[in-house]
Amino acid sequence: MSNPIAELIEQLSQDDISHEAVNSAINAMSPDDVALALESIPIAQRRLAWDSIKQANRLDILVEMRGESRTLLLKQLEDFEIAALFSDVDAEDLLEIADSLPDQMIDIALQKMDSKQREYYHQGVTYDDDEVGRWVDHDLLIASQSIRVSEAMRLFRRASSAYSDLLYLVNRTGRWVGCVQLNALLNAQPHDHVSSLMIEDYPFLTADTDVIKAADQLEKVELSALPVVDSNHLLVGRFHTGHALEARRLELESSQMSTTGLNEESDLFSPVRRSAATRGIWLGINLLTAFLASAFIGLFQATLEQVVALAVLMPIVASMGGIAGSQTLTLIVRGLALGQITRSNLVSLLKKEIQVGGLNGVVWALCIGGMVLWWFHSPLLGLTIGLAIIINIIMAALSGVVIPVILDKLKIDPALSGSVILTTVTDIAGYIAFLGLGTLLLL
Amino acid sequence: MSNPIAELIEQLSQDDISHEAVNSAINAMSPDDVALALESIPIAQRRLAWDSIKQANRLDILVEMRGESRTLLLKQLEDFEIAALFSDVDAEDLLEIADSLPDQMIDIALQKMDSKQREYYHQGVTYDDDEVGRWVDHDLLIASQSIRVSEAMRLFRRASSAYSDLLYLVNRTGRWVGCVQLNALLNAQPHDHVSSLMIEDYPFLTADTDVIKAADQLEKVELSALPVVDSNHLLVGRFHTGHALEARRLELESSQMSTTGLNEESDLFSPVRRSAATRGIWLGINLLTAFLASAFIGLFQATLEQVVALAVLMPIVASMGGIAGSQTLTLIVRGLALGQITRSNLVSLLKKEIQVGGLNGVVWALCIGGMVLWWFHSPLLGLTIGLAIIINIIMAALSGVVIPVILDKLKIDPALSGSVILTTVTDIAGYIAFLGLGTLLLL
Repeated sequence: MSNPIAELIEQLSQDDISHEAVNSAINAMSPDDVALALESIPIAQRRLAWDSIKQANRLDILVEMRGESRTLLLKQLEDFEIAALFSDVDAEDLLEIADSLPDQMIDIALQKMDSKQREYYHQGVTYDDDEVGRWVDHDLLIASQSIRVSEAMRLFRRASSAYSDLLYLVNRTGRWVGCVQLNALLNAQPHDHVSSLMIEDYPFLTADTDVIKAADQLEKVELSALPVVDSNHLLVGRFHTGHALEARRLELESSQMSTTGLNEESDLFSPVRRSAATRGIWLGINLLTAFLASAFIGLFQATLEQVVALAVLMPIVASMGGIAGSQTLTLIVRGLALGQITRSNLVSLLKKEIQVGGLNGVVWALCIGGMVLWWFHSPLLGLTIGLAIIINIIMAALSGVVIPVILDKLKIDPALSGSVILTTVTDIAGYIAFLGLGTLLLL
Repeated sequence: MSNPIAELIEQLSQDDISHEAVNSAINAMSPDDVALALESIPIAQRRLAWDSIKQANRLDILVEMRGESRTLLLKQLEDFEIAALFSDVDAEDLLEIADSLPDQMIDIALQKMDSKQREYYHQGVTYDDDEVGRWVDHDLLIASQSIRVSEAMRLFRRASSAYSDLLYLVNRTGRWVGCVQLNALLNAQPHDHVSSLMIEDYPFLTADTDVIKAADQLEKVELSALPVVDSNHLLVGRFHTGHALEARRLELESSQMSTTGLNEESDLFSPVRRSAATRGIWLGINLLTAFLASAFIGLFQATLEQVVALAVLMPIVASMGGIAGSQTLTLIVRGLALGQITRSNLVSLLKKEIQVGGLNGVVWALCIGGMVLWWFHSPLLGLTIGLAIIINIIMAALSGVVIPVILDKLKIDPALSGSVILTTVTDIAGYIAFLGLGTLLLL
């Protein structure tokens, strides 16, 4: 238990909480660690821990919290307590927590800001959560393109924020024209014009760029930050490597959570009813697909009555198809995300996937057919399941390619809905193939 | 088709390839784009494209390729062609491609390196793929801690690599003692000692740190790079934000691919047999779990013969449990990864998940029971499936918490194997609950 987060959780979950111990533990930790610790204890205890946090640190911690956790905590606070958080709020913080705040609280926060920050806020909210315009910060060194190296150096000397190795140059109308790296200035003479040191074609982002695409670009160019401009080429802010790392971290969490209908903002201790409702939607979608599959099984009731072994074995056929199809789907979804799949290679890809499916289909059909023969002593039943496995795995390969490509064409994210549609198809195809062949061969 | 990768794929997949067009397209693209394009065409065409690439660019492109794609390409090349790649190889490049090379080729490459690079290579291979010691680069500015600001500035003026805003200071025995930021030097006098500007407790990484943990740390400290040291505090290299962004990108891909038994090195056009073999392992594991579930269904053959509706409906019970369990599992796996789950909050968490499961169980039991009553006109069948749904969803909640926690204790990654174990449990529990209750209530 050397982990400070674990220790704090331990402290907070004791029946007899020592306020002094909690106080000192909390105020020694970084805001993101406290945020994580708050999210790790039952909601009833969070208010207690919150009261131990120094007023000056509270806003930073709130900013670091997950969306749902923050909303739940803010619900426990009185209006005057929330208003007190905003004494030192800036546009970036407010943009981060705005979704968890009622409108009148946002107004109070805006009143406490200076006009510059208010302008940044109003600019930021015009962009979506996943657009880089919402992610930027404003701690960048900006200067006129006409200044000299000596003046630029003075700006760098006073720079205090992270990733300050870039000077952003603007022209007289305020449009961004280029960037100069600090390293370049070191080799110049004080009276040189900085514009002569400007990097040609310095890369930039438009504010509506998807944040994941922006992170890709920043990784590629190996720079600490990129300017973000609006459609008029006016500077909106900068997108730096800290933003890019955060964007990828959230993307990973989101990708892992979304496969089960949750999202990365979900709270570990979300209240029972709220949690049940969120998850219920996904269960409902699944129920529809499950009933659809059952309806197809229902068509073969007469067969199942006579050959009950078919009922025993049918989940095997469905599940092998589901797994094989998911493998193809995963490969295609990655290919689509990377821009690897075009009209020119789709046919070769389909051919290859069907060959892989055919080969694995035959191999596993022989294996499963043999096992079923040994289990039920019926060669015809073994033949039935073997053929059904081959048909369903090939069907799965076909669906694994076609479904994500169609979804992508329809601008629906195949990573999100591809899997549900695919397994519905492989379930139904599996039941029809197996029970249909059973009706033909075994009755 | 404004995308250069798509255009190149298009060019390469035409029957009548224009070598000139391919040549100019390839040599205008960045190495990572060419690598991606090569991975997007059938393997037979890759050799042809490869021949269009200038010798000087080939190694860079090879380094950017995915493991499997690289291995497949190298297999098509003659030994002398591979040896020709190494005229300008450095330790980092060789470490990246070593897994795809036969041993004698690695020896040839090592012979072409200078002794410093050879040393870096031998140091790098002692670490695993996911340890930061394997990821470092060596383009860092190192100086003795006794130098003055003027000398340090001279080093920065000559610096040419990316992320060069840090000077790494070592003592007389070569041990790393601290770092100085370029910004700090700007405000100092030329004759000052740089050691007086050293950041106190500058964070560092030990070379055996997991690369994802290293990325987390780099994001947290908002710096461009961190020193990586060995157990004797000797500098192994630096881990910069470019490395961190790459690590997170690969982690995301790996996380998405591994759920179906693939990995992020898989080639889109991997040869049929090779591909079938890789995927076959996962299909085999799935088959074992499917047969296990079938064996439990088999125990109820007598019941199924009499009430065939149970066979029609049993997939619904299994699948609802699987979905509900995966939701809990996902939340717990994230919690474990973030260090949120400790002995102190496990009981509260289990209680909450069982409550959520209970609530959703009752809601969906009523819904499904009602639908089954309407479909089969049997109140007892509706009751049977309703009870089975409640039991299985609660069982799923329990398993969703307990399985990942146990796997984590056993040092098995719950993100990888948790899902297979969980759905096996919910399948079996669902069949036993539904068919068992059916035997009691309906016969």
